[in-house]
Formats: sequence, structure tokens, C-alpha cells
Amino acid sequence: MIVDRLFEAVKNQGHVCVGLDTELSYLPESFSEAFLTRGEAIFQFNKEIIDKTSDITACYKVQIAYYEALGLEGLKAYSNTLRYIKQKGAISIGDIKRGDIQKTAEMYAKAHFEGDFEGDFVTLNAYMGINDSLEPYLNYIANKDKGIFVLIRTSNQGAKDFQYIRDQKGAFLYTKVGEKLQQLAQQYLGECGFSSIGGVVGCPNNEEGIQLRNQINNLFLLIPGYGAQGGGAKDVVPYLINGNGGVVNSSRGIITAYKNDLTNPIDFAEASRKAVLRMRDEIWGAIQ
Amino acid sequence: MIVDRLFEAVKNQGHVCVGLDTELSYLPESFSEAFLTRGEAIFQFNKEIIDKTSDITACYKVQIAYYEALGLEGLKAYSNTLRYIKQKGAISIGDIKRGDIQKTAEMYAKAHFEGDFEGDFVTLNAYMGINDSLEPYLNYIANKDKGIFVLIRTSNQGAKDFQYIRDQKGAFLYTKVGEKLQQLAQQYLGECGFSSIGGVVGCPNNEEGIQLRNQINNLFLLIPGYGAQGGGAKDVVPYLINGNGGVVNSSRGIITAYKNDLTNPIDFAEASRKAVLRMRDEIWGAIQ
Repeated sequence: MIVDRLFEAVKNQGHVCVGLDTELSYLPESFSEAFLTRGEAIFQFNKEIIDKTSDITACYKVQIAYYEALGLEGLKAYSNTLRYIKQKGAISIGDIKRGDIQKTAEMYAKAHFEGDFEGDFVTLNAYMGINDSLEPYLNYIANKDKGIFVLIRTSNQGAKDFQYIRDQKGAFLYTKVGEKLQQLAQQYLGECGFSSIGGVVGCPNNEEGIQLRNQINNLFLLIPGYGAQGGGAKDVVPYLINGNGGVVNSSRGIITAYKNDLTNPIDFAEASRKAVLRMRDEIWGAIQ
Repeated sequence: MIVDRLFEAVKNQGHVCVGLDTELSYLPESFSEAFLTRGEAIFQFNKEIIDKTSDITACYKVQIAYYEALGLEGLKAYSNTLRYIKQKGAISIGDIKRGDIQKTAEMYAKAHFEGDFEGDFVTLNAYMGINDSLEPYLNYIANKDKGIFVLIRTSNQGAKDFQYIRDQKGAFLYTKVGEKLQQLAQQYLGECGFSSIGGVVGCPNNEEGIQLRNQINNLFLLIPGYGAQGGGAKDVVPYLINGNGGVVNSSRGIITAYKNDLTNPIDFAEASRKAVLRMRDEIWGAIQ
């Protein structure tokens, strides 16, 4: 089960999920200039960051939107990046947030668990229904060592629009999503006790968060919002169980860290390594 | 406003939205064999269908999942298909159901309203919040003649999982989504009285449907579920207003119609034309 590999990676290398949400403007100009296409520049930038961080990260989350925005050449960079992560023996999450049903969901599963865009995990949106949205992915989870993270509660302000609607028994919509996932997750438990069906849960650290975590205690979590979106190490801790069961994503905070590094502003890969180490230690510190 | 173009197309050419959810297995073998790549075969298949139907359809919906499933060559076919629809002067809907926020949503907007994957409309998922999910698209709607269809209520069984959750005042989640869209839509009204912010609403024909339509009376609707998913012409009528304000999608029912045409099983384009004409007349008949 892929979740066991992720669990081990967290245990040995820390909780940091490096978000490769790579936009051309994030690259040092002198670096980009050396490549013929924007896609190639972005892939090489990612590659150097992966080379410098794969021993101290849990996994890499590659946000496909940034690559789609460059069209076909961007998606080639997306494909190359996922392939390189695999080649390094590291774990990838395709942050695609797809959500569709029936034959269409089957096509998305094929797209992102096979062929050019194959990753280890994908993120999904289940607005159209749990079983209808997720069914085509289950065979890959059971038999092909794949995993999913389904949106439960996101950390943006507007999450309140719908995710916080309470039903007639007082339960939040996001709680209902979590509940259904927790049920489904039972069939895909790894040896570590977590499931290869995981959830995306944003950072607010409060009573609500603790309640939610208790309810979805078999889900491995992908926790966004560290750094750029305002969350810190202390906010992450309630979402971990015995110090594991979650990875914490930071994107710009890591890949553009070089812009704040006045000692050597060009060495983006080294700056990203320092940023990962700092974040990893902050989280370890907060756990203890 | 793009919605005025769509309104005119419906008025003059009927309500049919041809769904180009094209999978390799849908093509006649003898046709596919003539092309070097799967992507090229699929694009040429689409092209022939577009050539034979563009005078009798409202628009084309291209389901990106089917193209993503073939990786880079599939997405090249997606790009070529959208470009060809534009070249024919027809209207395209990129059925992408993306849903994300902030910078990521901005990237998706750029990806699907500019460059290789440019379409006239896209479908979106607003689970992460209305403003947060939609904000980056609004400038394109106001200034670049683009439009969106946001998922409100889908026609699958599992839609009940979340979309039908009632809040403490008894309102369905999907009603809340509709309400917020109806508000936002006011700023993007076309001369036809509908907005370039539209909704995706599945087919069930009942009191609930009529109530929903009254509530979201400025939204242009994309109505899926005709044919393959069990809906018929009568189920569509309550979602139209004075016979306009909606397009009705059919995918396999049109593009694989040739498989049921025993007179000339190879002429898929002609069979798709017949299927569009039949569906168009059924809907016109039901309106009267």
C-alpha cells in the first residue's frame, strides 16, 4: 500500500510536502535563459529542487494548474517532473482536484494513474458524490499501489460558503464528507493503520479541528496552507496522530525561498533545501 | 457577451450541445487505422462530426478527461478540437470541472481561456467557495467574451450524498450554490437577459426542478443526462425559459449513433447528424 511508503517517508524524512507549483516568474532569470522552452526551464528548475531535497521531504505535490497554464509544453514539464520524482524513488501527489463521475472519472483515473501523467497519489473533489466520484480509482488503490486525497475542508476564507453549511442534525457538510471517506477508507488500510484513501484538510487549529481528526482517524491527511496561507507548525500538530498520518505542504515558501536569501540569491536549490530543513524542524519541534 | 451568442445559436439552431467525449473505442476501426497516432484519429473523427453538425447544434462540449487519458497526444487532440470549433465559428465548452482557489484558479483560467486549450466556456466546481473559486474567471467574462457553467445539481444517483444535504432552514446545498451564483450572475448579464455565468443542472423533472429554475432565472443552463443517462425531451422543458436559456448535452447518443445505424454503419458523421436532428426535434416538440 502506497500509504505505508508515505508513512515511512514521514517517519524518516519529516512531514514536508514540497509543492512544485512552479511558475516561470519564480525562476531566476539567468537560469531560465539557458533553456529553449519555458516548459524545459520549469522542469529543470524542479529537477534541481528535487535533487536537493528528496532526502528530507515526505513527498512532492505537483499542482497541475501551473503546467496547464502553459498548454502542451507545460504539461510536458508536468509529465517530466512526475517521472523524475519516480526515478528518484520519491513519492508524488498530482494535485489535480478532479471531480467527475462514471466513464469520465474512469478516464481521469487512467490519465493520472497510468501513462504520461502517472503519479502515486491524486487529489480529488467529491461534490458529485462519494461513490460516484471515487469508484474508478478504487481498483488502482487496491491493486496498483495508488492513493487519493479527497477535499474535506480547505483553509481559505471562502471555504465557509458551502463546507460549513450545517445539516439538520447540526453536522457540517465537511464532516459528512469526512464521515463517508472514513467509512470507505476501512477497505484500504495499510499496515501503518492509515488508509490509502486520505483527505485534504486545511490548517485552523481549534476544537473543531480536533473533533474532525478524531472522526477521520484512519485518513492520512494532506495539509495545505503552511507559510503562504498563514498556518504554522503549531496548527499542524492536532492533525497528526502519534506524530504521523499527515504531510504538510508548502510551495512558494520553499521554491521561491532563494528570493529572500541575500547571501546567494541565485542558488535556488540550496535555498529550498534550507527552507525544507527549517520547516521540518519547526514541525518536529512543535510535535515534541 | 458570449451568452448572447449562445442564446442566438439556441434560437436558430436548436438546443443540442454535442458532447465530444471521444474515446478511441468509439471510432470505426477502419477509420482509426488511417492515422498514425490515436490523438490524430480522435481529432479527425471530431472534425468530421463538427463539419456535419455545426449548422444544427448550439455548441460543442469537449470533455477533457477523455483526452487527458491519452496523455500529451490526447491533449493535442483536445487543443486541435477546440481550435477547429472556433475556426468553424461555433461555440465550445471545455468540460473541465476544475475547482481551486487563488493563484491556482488563476492558472486554470489562463490555461482554458488562453493559449492551447482556449474555449468559449468552461465548467467549474465551487466546493471551495464561490468567490474564491470563481474570482479569477470574472475578468475574462467581463472583458474577453468568456463564460462559465458552475456545477449546481448533477443528475447522477450519488448527487444525493452532498448536494441534497439540507441546511437548518431546510434549503438544499445545491440551492445555496444556485443562490450565490444567481447573485453573482447579475453583474454579467447579456442582452438576452441571461448571464455569462451559468450553471450545470441535471435533468429530473419535478416540483424541485421548477423551484430551482425560478430561483436561478438569470443563469443559462448546461443540462447533461439526455439519452445515455436516462433523461428525455420532456425532462428538459422545465429548465428552459420561453424556450431558451439552456443547452442540452448528449455525447455517446450522438457520436456513437452510427453503431446503431444498420443502413450504413461506417458513416459516423452522417449518423451523428441524424441523431442531432432527432434530438433537436424532440426538444422543439416538447416545448410546444
